[in-house]
Amino acid sequence: MAKLTPLLQQLIEALRVLPGVGPKSAQRMAFQLLERNRSGGARLGTALVAAMEGIGQCQQCRTFSEHSLCAICSDVKRQQADVLCVVGSAADQLAIEHTGQFQGRYFVLMGYLSPLDGVGPAELGLDALAAQLAQGKLTELILATNPTVEGEATAFYIAELCQKYGCKVTRLAQGLPFGGELEYIDGTTLAHAFSGRKSF
Amino acid sequence: MAKLTPLLQQLIEALRVLPGVGPKSAQRMAFQLLERNRSGGARLGTALVAAMEGIGQCQQCRTFSEHSLCAICSDVKRQQADVLCVVGSAADQLAIEHTGQFQGRYFVLMGYLSPLDGVGPAELGLDALAAQLAQGKLTELILATNPTVEGEATAFYIAELCQKYGCKVTRLAQGLPFGGELEYIDGTTLAHAFSGRKSF
Ligand SMILES: [Zn+2]
Ligand SMILES: [Zn+2]
Repeated sequence: MAKLTPLLQQLIEALRVLPGVGPKSAQRMAFQLLERNRSGGARLGTALVAAMEGIGQCQQCRTFSEHSLCAICSDVKRQQADVLCVVGSAADQLAIEHTGQFQGRYFVLMGYLSPLDGVGPAELGLDALAAQLAQGKLTELILATNPTVEGEATAFYIAELCQKYGCKVTRLAQGLPFGGELEYIDGTTLAHAFSGRKSF
Repeated sequence: MAKLTPLLQQLIEALRVLPGVGPKSAQRMAFQLLERNRSGGARLGTALVAAMEGIGQCQQCRTFSEHSLCAICSDVKRQQADVLCVVGSAADQLAIEHTGQFQGRYFVLMGYLSPLDGVGPAELGLDALAAQLAQGKLTELILATNPTVEGEATAFYIAELCQKYGCKVTRLAQGLPFGGELEYIDGTTLAHAFSGRKSF
């Protein structure tokens, strides 16, 4: 109704910025917070403002950080690592951290090369990445970009940088996802898995 | 990872107060806002704080309002209405407004009688409702409570109040699916049930 109290109307509209939240679920969220959890709603409001205003990027790896160096880049053990893993986003970095398999440092592109959208090497901080390569301390750079057209193009660009600076470069294996069923896997993945087959 | 910057960690946890938002989708929301829409995220934060702190209840009908009287109770045409529609929640009121079938006033219970949860007549403002009935100006009270056990029990209690004060009382036509929640019923069904209301 046009009769919703203005603060409520504004809240319902503002909730639509959340991914996957349409008008009906924005309304449900607003009513539920007002009816059952005002303190939680206010806490969320404060956390949103603090995060949107306070979170910048790590000066070294570009991941989200409220300090000039993120927790990983500030970690003495990981500072000494000579392996760098390049990912497309902070969410991808988080996914790799969760595997527990990697103890090195990261470089977070925060996007992929996309000339039509005005995203070039500068926007992804590739000059800073080149400067790290130029120091000659890295023994390996792992490309963990998305297996998509843009991810591949960006990986190719970075691989050329590595060759220029004489750094070994590796790429996450492409193939069948664990637990996947062959008949449901898309053709491109299957073709990659097939051509990348290994001795058993 | 334990390595998420604290403000981001707090934001992801705070997002969990939203209905239907689990850890994975809270994380997705936080990253998406940080990457693509910080101004929208900050606007949502401000709207949340303003709504949680600024929205109270209308003194007359108990619906959400940031003023002492809501927009409907302040509407001169509707002030003169002699039909009162009793609903369980502001969301139910909104659903009925959307049918466009009703021009009278509302009384919003903000819950149903539930002695085990400590919700009695006082918690639902039924003394204020009785006071309105006592004025003798209402020609009809429409019970638009949920077709659930608690909704029926509350309707029965209010119907007895009406009999005491000699006010005609009607009930939304059955045809609403038993156990359904009014807020989620489609507009046509709701409009039919509304126009087909019967003496209680
Ligand atoms: Zn860092
Ligand atoms: Zn009102």
